[in-house]
Amino acid sequence: MTNHRRALADFRWEGVDLRAYKDEAAAPFRSVTRQVLATAPDLKGELRYFEVAPGGWTTLERHAHVHAVTILRGAGRALVGDEVFAVRPLDLVTVPAWAWHQFRASAGEPLGFLCMVDAERDRPQLPTAEQRAALEAIPAVARFLAGS
Amino acid sequence: MTNHRRALADFRWEGVDLRAYKDEAAAPFRSVTRQVLATAPDLKGELRYFEVAPGGWTTLERHAHVHAVTILRGAGRALVGDEVFAVRPLDLVTVPAWAWHQFRASAGEPLGFLCMVDAERDRPQLPTAEQRAALEAIPAVARFLAGS
Repeated sequence: MTNHRRALADFRWEGVDLRAYKDEAAAPFRSVTRQVLATAPDLKGELRYFEVAPGGWTTLERHAHVHAVTILRGAGRALVGDEVFAVRPLDLVTVPAWAWHQFRASAGEPLGFLCMVDAERDRPQLPTAEQRAALEAIPAVARFLAGS
Repeated sequence: MTNHRRALADFRWEGVDLRAYKDEAAAPFRSVTRQVLATAPDLKGELRYFEVAPGGWTTLERHAHVHAVTILRGAGRALVGDEVFAVRPLDLVTVPAWAWHQFRASAGEPLGFLCMVDAERDRPQLPTAEQRAALEAIPAVARFLAGS
């Protein structure tokens, strides 16, 4: 057993599997991968690396658990609650409990980020048609969700 | 309140204080700073960024809580248990419960890393003279602790 996992090229790591972001059928997303970098029975947090390919996006969702995100690679935009902002490497993003959120990579660059969460956490909720309409009533959010 | 803290130059962040690593009197270390990047009452983990200046080192210590470290900047070496290894950006280092550990920056470069821990955790222990002698009986560890 080693306590050192070397970084490989292109944001991969020794002994860390590249996984599907989610079950395709369960929630809409495009071009996202997931690597679990740190998880242990005696650790209450978990650290994952997500990478959104150029033009891709994570699921629009919300939940009780909090995300603490550190951008590592590329460029993109984030929606948190009713705020939309551009993100770049080393920026920090907090997703509070029950805030709707989504990450979108720029057309020309992937967006890679670390995400710290509680190991024990609730399942995400997807927006109802009504909740999505309420988000789209905010012009900046509507533009973000349309990918424009 | 914002959910976005922009990265500033030189591994600093908007609205994040640069703190002393520890109370100087309590434990030996050299040239280390600490920034708390993510902590919240509803988050069981905490994310900190530590930076060790060229030639500096963190305290040699151990504790029940686990560290999940992601190297972000520079170069150096780590001691975990009785293993010594070189680290570089994006490498992952796990410090298991009760493993003696220390991080040392190279002479010519700082060593900066993220460290995920449980928010609730025990206090570190310093080695007794006997414990330090046992570590120094391992040649690679003795060289590491001597900074050579």
